[in-house]
Amino acid sequence: MVADAFSDASYLKHMLAFERAWTEALIASGANDGQEALAAIDGFVPDLDALRLGSETDGLPVPELVRQLKRGMSAGAMVAIHKGATSQDVIDTAMVLICRDVLLDFHRRATGIVAQLDALDARFGEVEMMGRTRMQAALPIRVSDRVRTWRAPLHAHLEALPILLGAFARVQVGGPVGVRGDDTITAHVAKTLNLSLTPVWHTDRSGFVNVGNWLVLLGGTLGKIGLDISLMAQQGIDEVKLSGAGGSSAMPHKQNPVRAETLVTLARYVAGKQGILGQAMLHEQERSGAAWTLEWMVLPEMFEATGAALNSASGLLGQIERLGRSDD
Amino acid sequence: MVADAFSDASYLKHMLAFERAWTEALIASGANDGQEALAAIDGFVPDLDALRLGSETDGLPVPELVRQLKRGMSAGAMVAIHKGATSQDVIDTAMVLICRDVLLDFHRRATGIVAQLDALDARFGEVEMMGRTRMQAALPIRVSDRVRTWRAPLHAHLEALPILLGAFARVQVGGPVGVRGDDTITAHVAKTLNLSLTPVWHTDRSGFVNVGNWLVLLGGTLGKIGLDISLMAQQGIDEVKLSGAGGSSAMPHKQNPVRAETLVTLARYVAGKQGILGQAMLHEQERSGAAWTLEWMVLPEMFEATGAALNSASGLLGQIERLGRSDD
Amino acid sequence: MVADAFSDASYLKHMLAFERAWTEALIASGANDGQEALAAIDGFVPDLDALRLGSETDGLPVPELVRQLKRGMSAGAMVAIHKGATSQDVIDTAMVLICRDVLLDFHRRATGIVAQLDALDARFGEVEMMGRTRMQAALPIRVSDRVRTWRAPLHAHLEALPILLGAFARVQVGGPVGVRGDDTITAHVAKTLNLSLTPVWHTDRSGFVNVGNWLVLLGGTLGKIGLDISLMAQQGIDEVKLSGAGGSSAMPHKQNPVRAETLVTLARYVAGKQGILGQAMLHEQERSGAAWTLEWMVLPEMFEATGAALNSASGLLGQIERLGRSDD
Amino acid sequence: MVADAFSDASYLKHMLAFERAWTEALIASGANDGQEALAAIDGFVPDLDALRLGSETDGLPVPELVRQLKRGMSAGAMVAIHKGATSQDVIDTAMVLICRDVLLDFHRRATGIVAQLDALDARFGEVEMMGRTRMQAALPIRVSDRVRTWRAPLHAHLEALPILLGAFARVQVGGPVGVRGDDTITAHVAKTLNLSLTPVWHTDRSGFVNVGNWLVLLGGTLGKIGLDISLMAQQGIDEVKLSGAGGSSAMPHKQNPVRAETLVTLARYVAGKQGILGQAMLHEQERSGAAWTLEWMVLPEMFEATGAALNSASGLLGQIERLGRSDD
Repeated sequence: MVADAFSDASYLKHMLAFERAWTEALIASGANDGQEALAAIDGFVPDLDALRLGSETDGLPVPELVRQLKRGMSAGAMVAIHKGATSQDVIDTAMVLICRDVLLDFHRRATGIVAQLDALDARFGEVEMMGRTRMQAALPIRVSDRVRTWRAPLHAHLEALPILLGAFARVQVGGPVGVRGDDTITAHVAKTLNLSLTPVWHTDRSGFVNVGNWLVLLGGTLGKIGLDISLMAQQGIDEVKLSGAGGSSAMPHKQNPVRAETLVTLARYVAGKQGILGQAMLHEQERSGAAWTLEWMVLPEMFEATGAALNSASGLLGQIERLGRSDD
Repeated sequence: MVADAFSDASYLKHMLAFERAWTEALIASGANDGQEALAAIDGFVPDLDALRLGSETDGLPVPELVRQLKRGMSAGAMVAIHKGATSQDVIDTAMVLICRDVLLDFHRRATGIVAQLDALDARFGEVEMMGRTRMQAALPIRVSDRVRTWRAPLHAHLEALPILLGAFARVQVGGPVGVRGDDTITAHVAKTLNLSLTPVWHTDRSGFVNVGNWLVLLGGTLGKIGLDISLMAQQGIDEVKLSGAGGSSAMPHKQNPVRAETLVTLARYVAGKQGILGQAMLHEQERSGAAWTLEWMVLPEMFEATGAALNSASGLLGQIERLGRSDD
Repeated sequence: MVADAFSDASYLKHMLAFERAWTEALIASGANDGQEALAAIDGFVPDLDALRLGSETDGLPVPELVRQLKRGMSAGAMVAIHKGATSQDVIDTAMVLICRDVLLDFHRRATGIVAQLDALDARFGEVEMMGRTRMQAALPIRVSDRVRTWRAPLHAHLEALPILLGAFARVQVGGPVGVRGDDTITAHVAKTLNLSLTPVWHTDRSGFVNVGNWLVLLGGTLGKIGLDISLMAQQGIDEVKLSGAGGSSAMPHKQNPVRAETLVTLARYVAGKQGILGQAMLHEQERSGAAWTLEWMVLPEMFEATGAALNSASGLLGQIERLGRSDD
Repeated sequence: MVADAFSDASYLKHMLAFERAWTEALIASGANDGQEALAAIDGFVPDLDALRLGSETDGLPVPELVRQLKRGMSAGAMVAIHKGATSQDVIDTAMVLICRDVLLDFHRRATGIVAQLDALDARFGEVEMMGRTRMQAALPIRVSDRVRTWRAPLHAHLEALPILLGAFARVQVGGPVGVRGDDTITAHVAKTLNLSLTPVWHTDRSGFVNVGNWLVLLGGTLGKIGLDISLMAQQGIDEVKLSGAGGSSAMPHKQNPVRAETLVTLARYVAGKQGILGQAMLHEQERSGAAWTLEWMVLPEMFEATGAALNSASGLLGQIERLGRSDD
């Protein structure tokens, strides 16, 4: 579930992954009581109410998280926790890790949808249907021609994802004001978390905007499938037969192409959200609370909607009992 | 909490309120076993898992809800449940009821913010500060001049709300395809739910867009306050002193105007969302699953963000220890 | 043409109308050489290149405009020009005047569309057609039922406009930092320009956002008509017959419902723009160059698109030769 | 000028480039009277009024353009004009050509801005300034640290453009319903126009959305520079000195950072537009008039605004007389 990936528990888990990698890097650089610090991270039981309160006061959970981590710790171990890092390092890196996980899951699921389309093409591809342009019957095509227009962009998005991730999956270490010292600690953290090492990017939000753009492409491609199927399902057009479509409280005879419509909804939703996410490019000075918070609100919503679209698409394609012209 | 108002439980409660009013209206029009139906509604214990599943299959919860309501009921009572109504009647009316409740709550809370502004004006209004235009010092003004620009639009939004609600708070009864018979049943339902009776508006989504617009106005007005205060809090400007501002994990000396920034974030978020909500005006034929679902996704998010903005604004104004030029 | 209303020439004309009213008010308040100033305004021939250059440098045309107006003027007359006003007073007031003119024109044109719908209803209203919900045939309705869903919201928007204009059409006089002195001059200007007199609203952009919202409502209502007609025009549905529809370069047999599609495009465009216009609510301090300029970019585009939609709608309805089920 | 690139004359020129390449390809495939057709294209004088009228009726200019091209032509030559192509082939390919030209121009101009930033860094990089996070003074940094956050993303966008163009700059040949025959003609056209040859992509609008996304990144990066500079220009902060900034009609002492504000405006405008462009991913069936037209409205506006931002950025950086702390 995408919602789980962006839950408080998941953020916490990935923030702790950063803090652990950071402490390991400090140990490798000579921190003395680092093992005590590591043990504290591994055995950490958060006070969630205090975290929530701290997050509200500070605008982010890290200051309180670090306080809790250090509680009862020896002075020596304390300096092996978070030393030289800043909240943004923790949060941006955690967000990158979460986004990567979900994107890889989306890749797997979209691959499954391509396979479903291949199977539909194999089964119905030679059937005739009407090619339609500007909402008007144009010339006959085969089902395969239509299915290809669904599959080709999906395939392209799948191919583009590794390139996107290559640029996106980089560690964020900028310290208080985006001035990183030497790269030793950062390189260690990057390696531990399987992220690439690049110069600081604390105010450059392009990576998240690019991720949002990929969600728009994926959501829009699935939305086109939904739009087409909802049009094909019309009486008088009858170019698709769906099993188990949605019912109506007033008209029991109806079979509504609910998942097809949902794909249209989700595509419009995700596309529109990108117009908000892009506002967060305006990230003033060394750190913008206002712009940064906007990302946290919008990006998870875009991911959740795209995940729902992948579900709906898979379900919808599984409902297809016929594509193309009916012989009835 | 706004989230509660848009929870599954709240939707269910308000849908049942519609069904109850509907059954009462049927009774008033002569339904025989209506009391059994009323009792069933009043004692209804939902099977939530089945509701969720039905909602996913049908694209909305009403068909399964009606099935559950009628379970084990006599045939005579069954015809006093939902007869002649359609899912959209239930859902749109429930949404109107929820929105009205939350809007009235917002009116109360925004009135409180006006009072806070009045108090700040009384306390600091005569203090001098610099009037600034295009990010440049212009001419001296008094704190009162600035606070008035915060309060005046809030006041106007408060005055506009009853007019908005007068047009918005109307019952939706269109039946399966938006063709209402005589108004008797509908008038009864409207009266029970304290809604106005107008012709059917099943495909006219203007009411929800107008509500969204009001949230944009309110959110934007609070956002301007946040933006101003975050600018006033800058070192070198020093035109506000806040108590208990947010801390930093790396720089303990900092006092971040977190709530002020949050107001900016929320205003941008709500304003951007209106660009998505407006897409739902394109509500095809007698009922659009795609456009309608978009409203359900976007409008609650806008309400929640506006509620959060009211919280942040109230908290922020309460933190103000000084407005205007420091004498230090 | 809406584009003319937002042309440089039109802005100039309405800015001069403000300056003239201002000078008249100064005369009424005792300015000595006001007649010379008035004559200069009436005979003013702008140096457009210099205006454009000044506008680019200053971010707005008023400083250069005032320089040009005063050129060659006696010192006495100079003080009867723009004295005590600021650029924003001129520009906001001019924008209000232009918007009002165009809105009144839209009212007239939308009234014509209501008349076209009435005529279609009178001609075809009793014809049967299929009521469709969630893209599926539901139950038969009459053409009149569908046309009523097109006309009712239009009618409501027309009724709402005078109320909107009542709140919107107010003079802007705030001076350099939004602190108006006594209301004498302002009241005179308001009366001359037939605008209402309210407290300063220099940083409250609600009026323009409300205008944008009305355009969204109007555009969306016309877009729904377009969407419905493009669906009705499908072969297999055949619920509308259009004369003189658009041709294709490759398929001469086709009759594309171009204007219907255009209405959908324009509705999505206008609705999306509102998500940008709302960002301009965040108008910092006493005047925000950034937010203000955003209004000037977005609002005219919304007006032009809505004007195009009114054209398309009128043209489309005029093309209708049949509504409802064909007997062929 | 970007506006010229998207003018009617430019569209016409690039559509004719497609038609010419198409005729050449037909000749290479054996069309007999192709030279007459080529000569007609080369000597073509359009009837612009008829083109405009045809464009309005047909929703696009191509049918009328082809009619005009063929006027007075021998029957043999006529079949060497547009045969087997469709309007979308002409228009999409022309749009790709125009976008590529402008993107390459933007690359050149953004490279110039990187050079300006390098020069500023060389000149002022060692000067101290305050690092600021969440609108609060944090820790001192050097000017070079800030300038690097402006330059690094610009540099990344420049590096990303060739990859983007590699995927984007492909010929569109799908014929009436997106079913291309063999690739011979298409390959010839692609080669002539220096575009790549891929399978048909008539309903896959990802390429244009990716271009829009790149404009968002570029616009947002320039907007961040503008936002920073407008904050640095505040009295009390004084971290930049600009020459020749904008004047005020009421306050001659002011020096407004007009170009800095404009960059913020343009970034918000372009980012918001992407939320509309993404709606055009929902391209139904074999060709959507509604979605397609939306691209033509939005994408040129995004290009023009980004071009204006490049101008403003270059001008603004040229105005900088000092960066970092003043010693005054």
